[in-house]
Amino acid sequence: MLLPTLREEVLKANQEIARRGLAPHTFGNVSGIDRSGQEPLVVIKPSGVDYATMKPEDLVITDLDGRIKEGSLRPSSDLDTHTLLYREFPQIGGVVHTHSEFATAWAQACRPIPFLGTTHADYFHGPVPVTDPLTEAEVNEAYVRNTGAVIARRFKEGGLDPVALPGVLVAGHAPFAWGKSPMEAVEHADVLEYIARLAFRSVLLGAAEAGLPAYVGQHHYLRKHGPKATYGQK
Amino acid sequence: MLLPTLREEVLKANQEIARRGLAPHTFGNVSGIDRSGQEPLVVIKPSGVDYATMKPEDLVITDLDGRIKEGSLRPSSDLDTHTLLYREFPQIGGVVHTHSEFATAWAQACRPIPFLGTTHADYFHGPVPVTDPLTEAEVNEAYVRNTGAVIARRFKEGGLDPVALPGVLVAGHAPFAWGKSPMEAVEHADVLEYIARLAFRSVLLGAAEAGLPAYVGQHHYLRKHGPKATYGQK
Amino acid sequence: MLLPTLREEVLKANQEIARRGLAPHTFGNVSGIDRSGQEPLVVIKPSGVDYATMKPEDLVITDLDGRIKEGSLRPSSDLDTHTLLYREFPQIGGVVHTHSEFATAWAQACRPIPFLGTTHADYFHGPVPVTDPLTEAEVNEAYVRNTGAVIARRFKEGGLDPVALPGVLVAGHAPFAWGKSPMEAVEHADVLEYIARLAFRSVLLGAAEAGLPAYVGQHHYLRKHGPKATYGQK
Amino acid sequence: MLLPTLREEVLKANQEIARRGLAPHTFGNVSGIDRSGQEPLVVIKPSGVDYATMKPEDLVITDLDGRIKEGSLRPSSDLDTHTLLYREFPQIGGVVHTHSEFATAWAQACRPIPFLGTTHADYFHGPVPVTDPLTEAEVNEAYVRNTGAVIARRFKEGGLDPVALPGVLVAGHAPFAWGKSPMEAVEHADVLEYIARLAFRSVLLGAAEAGLPAYVGQHHYLRKHGPKATYGQK
Repeated sequence: MLLPTLREEVLKANQEIARRGLAPHTFGNVSGIDRSGQEPLVVIKPSGVDYATMKPEDLVITDLDGRIKEGSLRPSSDLDTHTLLYREFPQIGGVVHTHSEFATAWAQACRPIPFLGTTHADYFHGPVPVTDPLTEAEVNEAYVRNTGAVIARRFKEGGLDPVALPGVLVAGHAPFAWGKSPMEAVEHADVLEYIARLAFRSVLLGAAEAGLPAYVGQHHYLRKHGPKATYGQK
Repeated sequence: MLLPTLREEVLKANQEIARRGLAPHTFGNVSGIDRSGQEPLVVIKPSGVDYATMKPEDLVITDLDGRIKEGSLRPSSDLDTHTLLYREFPQIGGVVHTHSEFATAWAQACRPIPFLGTTHADYFHGPVPVTDPLTEAEVNEAYVRNTGAVIARRFKEGGLDPVALPGVLVAGHAPFAWGKSPMEAVEHADVLEYIARLAFRSVLLGAAEAGLPAYVGQHHYLRKHGPKATYGQK
Repeated sequence: MLLPTLREEVLKANQEIARRGLAPHTFGNVSGIDRSGQEPLVVIKPSGVDYATMKPEDLVITDLDGRIKEGSLRPSSDLDTHTLLYREFPQIGGVVHTHSEFATAWAQACRPIPFLGTTHADYFHGPVPVTDPLTEAEVNEAYVRNTGAVIARRFKEGGLDPVALPGVLVAGHAPFAWGKSPMEAVEHADVLEYIARLAFRSVLLGAAEAGLPAYVGQHHYLRKHGPKATYGQK
Repeated sequence: MLLPTLREEVLKANQEIARRGLAPHTFGNVSGIDRSGQEPLVVIKPSGVDYATMKPEDLVITDLDGRIKEGSLRPSSDLDTHTLLYREFPQIGGVVHTHSEFATAWAQACRPIPFLGTTHADYFHGPVPVTDPLTEAEVNEAYVRNTGAVIARRFKEGGLDPVALPGVLVAGHAPFAWGKSPMEAVEHADVLEYIARLAFRSVLLGAAEAGLPAYVGQHHYLRKHGPKATYGQK
């Protein structure tokens, strides 16, 4: 996505997480990346600015190492998590961090969200993973960047595919989600909250921790993502 | 119900499940059937179209085997469940599928909703049943049609009456409800969600799994449905 | 309260329980009583009429035995519970029946709401009682009147004061509340729902079933109701 | 803060707790203090007045011992708790009492809110403490003042800092929060409710009672409050 369009979409995506109730107390931020040029450029929300009054020129543009290229405001304090995810997951074009209420409750409980239903299956191909807690050394060395590092490690060590699992819970913190574009990342963050809300109730009702058989997940995921997709009009 | 009227009602019923919050993220669909002609005709929502902008002419009309008779859009991906229910339950005139939040939580926990109160009794004559999970063979052979088949089997094997129990939970998926007309089916889907929400809380408070004595259910059900109905002005 | 005023207040009170979300799906009704004349007269909501379109002349007026004195519509199907409460509790001037969500969840669990906090103490002088379930004989003989009878019995056998405890949970059904007037009864029904919602969460967090010491309840109740009341401007 | 400005802010802060849903049924009040003059002056909400119609001149002004200096209405019945907190915590400029739903549920369960996440860490430097219950002697001697006394005692005996922990749960009652100003106190009361809501769910999902390691709390607290704060644009 080219930079001027991306700037508009990132602004809209930040307002959208507020509008959908995913970012209570402005705890949340969205970024996007333009990988079309020689040097990839990240567009991100400035820190602590109200969603309602944010303007396109308030957005901050950095390179993949977080060096500011454009913008006079300080970038979101979570910038180094976003850039690390863009470096580690080259397939993604947008990243969302929220403190949405049920996904955050799971993150605080340090539990993955079990695979219990078909809505889950349509978007996440397996349980929603949870990272390890950051060690004291990781916190002290570079808290924000290492938040991204524990996410990347969780995917690498678990052999997980960030396209098939477009979100994660950071232990003791909150969710991150991503997608091809900032708006798709918002959609994934929103569905993640819905899944988290339902799974909370199902688990209290005694849902089996093991979740549904893998063949159900396989069918649903391919129904929506495979070459024979039957959902929608395309 | 004749086709032009039915088309209007099915459109309105689809918008109604969105308005009542029963179909988050457009996960839901309503159909109706016109059994007055030589060949019964099913009217159903097109797949993946936004409720707000849907027009009467967007609806798809099929026969009882799901062959398209009218309409240029692809029908809801759940069509084969709807048609199977119309074939198996000849008394019904409308079918609703939702992912309403509490009914879906029970479906994901694979638990029937116990009969705990009088509102339940006014609409559902016994616990709300839950189907078996689909087997791997059923998923691979014809996932959507077999979703209907496990519903029909649950009613047949349990000796259940689809008029006295106008809804069901599909294990690991979500609820289906039905009624004499599309709008009555919506009403049943809405009450099912209310029942599911209350039962969730009652069960966490320790409600007896066995539920209320059968004589309470009998009384309430007849109060609303029997020949001596005392509810309302009719 | 005189009849024309009462008629207005009962209409308003019925609309109010809908507006406050206490009567989902029109499950709910309010009545009032004029005890000023030779024969006490009860004003009650007609059965199954929409709150939004109800007019003063739709209300039904009966004597204390439920014989219709005025009105062309059928009275609420719960009339016999209301009249029994007016006969048994001569201090009260209004009765409300709701299916408000958390109070109903407690009623379905057949559990009294423990006395856990000061809001509770300001309105209910002790745990909110729950009735016995109706026996099969009671259901078959006169279900609605016996719903009132089990309430009255619960208060009589428990030595409870309907002024100090202006509400009750009917086991397997839902709450009733009352007050000096229909609008005070609505206020009590609304606070009961608030108490039920909080107690649900406190109990899941492990609140002691025994609740707070009696001396706290005593202090709060007298603070609001005693001769030395310190709350408000009167 | 000078008195005329403070009066405006206290009025606005009282309306704000209603607007944010923290003071259901008008259970709640905010005060502020002007410590600039020779004698500190407390501005507080009058008792039992509706938030919507409250005017600046309805506010009551007292000294630190609760003696009325200005205003014709009776002050909030919780005044003596507020003044005691101002005497004991000289750093604070505003006090809020609410009955917000989840914080009150924890208070009713007499449980501190464990430190489970980073939002918690940004505002509260450790678990949110809960007071001892008031003894019978404390209730009978001076209930309201002693509500403040058990809060102060909890902080003194626990070696807690009211700036690092800007709120508390009063056992069997509800939360109090405070801040540099009335509006900051409202912000803390609002975040406390958010924390309480998330912790409720995390605990039901099995979150470790011990909470996160202290080094995470330390990092987050300093990120927002320390000399090297990185959050926001200042």
